[in-house]
Amino acid sequence: MPASDDPRLVIDGSPLPDDLDERIRQQLTFVAEADRLKTILRASPLAAASRRENDAEHSWHLALMVMLLAEYSDEPIDVGHAMQLVVVHDLVEIYAGDSPVFDPDAVVDQVEREEAAAERLFTLLPPDQAAHVRALWDEFESAATPEARFCKAMDRLEPMLLNWLNHGGTWQMPGATESTVRAREAGVVAASTTLGSVTGRLVEEGLRRGWIRADP
Amino acid sequence: MPASDDPRLVIDGSPLPDDLDERIRQQLTFVAEADRLKTILRASPLAAASRRENDAEHSWHLALMVMLLAEYSDEPIDVGHAMQLVVVHDLVEIYAGDSPVFDPDAVVDQVEREEAAAERLFTLLPPDQAAHVRALWDEFESAATPEARFCKAMDRLEPMLLNWLNHGGTWQMPGATESTVRAREAGVVAASTTLGSVTGRLVEEGLRRGWIRADP
Repeated sequence: MPASDDPRLVIDGSPLPDDLDERIRQQLTFVAEADRLKTILRASPLAAASRRENDAEHSWHLALMVMLLAEYSDEPIDVGHAMQLVVVHDLVEIYAGDSPVFDPDAVVDQVEREEAAAERLFTLLPPDQAAHVRALWDEFESAATPEARFCKAMDRLEPMLLNWLNHGGTWQMPGATESTVRAREAGVVAASTTLGSVTGRLVEEGLRRGWIRADP
Repeated sequence: MPASDDPRLVIDGSPLPDDLDERIRQQLTFVAEADRLKTILRASPLAAASRRENDAEHSWHLALMVMLLAEYSDEPIDVGHAMQLVVVHDLVEIYAGDSPVFDPDAVVDQVEREEAAAERLFTLLPPDQAAHVRALWDEFESAATPEARFCKAMDRLEPMLLNWLNHGGTWQMPGATESTVRAREAGVVAASTTLGSVTGRLVEEGLRRGWIRADP
């Protein structure tokens, strides 16, 4: 959803004292800019309130799920490393906006928009940390490691659970039917046989109850 | 801020299919209940929007700060372990509510309320994971390890930065004056000489600019 068009940085609203060390100044500038992730709305409805979820809340929920569900990864994973992946995985949406998966218009240019956002955002950090965060984001995006695959599975499972708790949620969006929902489920199956079978049950039941539409 | 008085669990609004494995059922019940953390408001204002921060957003921001600022811990820390501490550190507020530090009424009974909340919330998990999350929460609360001390420092630094970015924020609450703000700053100093000196500069400047009141 709408990302910030403001060319100013959050920190420009209240510049840090002049005498701070340059490295810390860069790090706190990034930490302040990251506050914008709390304003980027996803399509998913919350379960505990009548509003949509934002990216910061979502990222926290994934970190909690990684901790609690890591035992179901088909490959062994380093939980601490996986938590780093989920904490940074949506940061580029601060400038690129969220691209709801069931909205065909939203995914046009998504790669280009996110690439430009990564360049603009991560380079606020000192060069070594910019490279580190960039590497984490690339690892997540490319699903190149067991940790990245498991984090992607959590990124699919969490909105499916929110949809279940809302008796439909984004499963009711115009672009969503059984096959597009199943395509999302595949991201869970790819990392976890056990959790893939759980999401399979949720989708079967969702279809049976009319929370997910059959393919046309 | 007001915690949930609803005696029902989030999952009761949409029970999971009957045939799920009991362990996974318990874990998903907890993951669904955790959605409530997104509804618990803190006193701190965001920097990027005109509203207060919720506990889930706050916990995510701390996880990011742990990753990026760990180099300033006076003692070496395990970043992955520290991230687990911050992800769970406020969960009990789902039932106990937030207790703003500058509000003397809010901290009455805080320990008892949080203890009861921990018992109610963590026992939704399978016993081994209930014990693990409880141990993480106890470690954080008691500041018993270098990781816990650094996480507590982040838990002090983040709202100070939000206050700075808001030209006052919770520093303007009735109970806040230089000495109570300095008492918060002490939590940063205790874990990081470098970040303690940064917060010292923010407080000095905040006093000079009238964003923090002098003691009466």
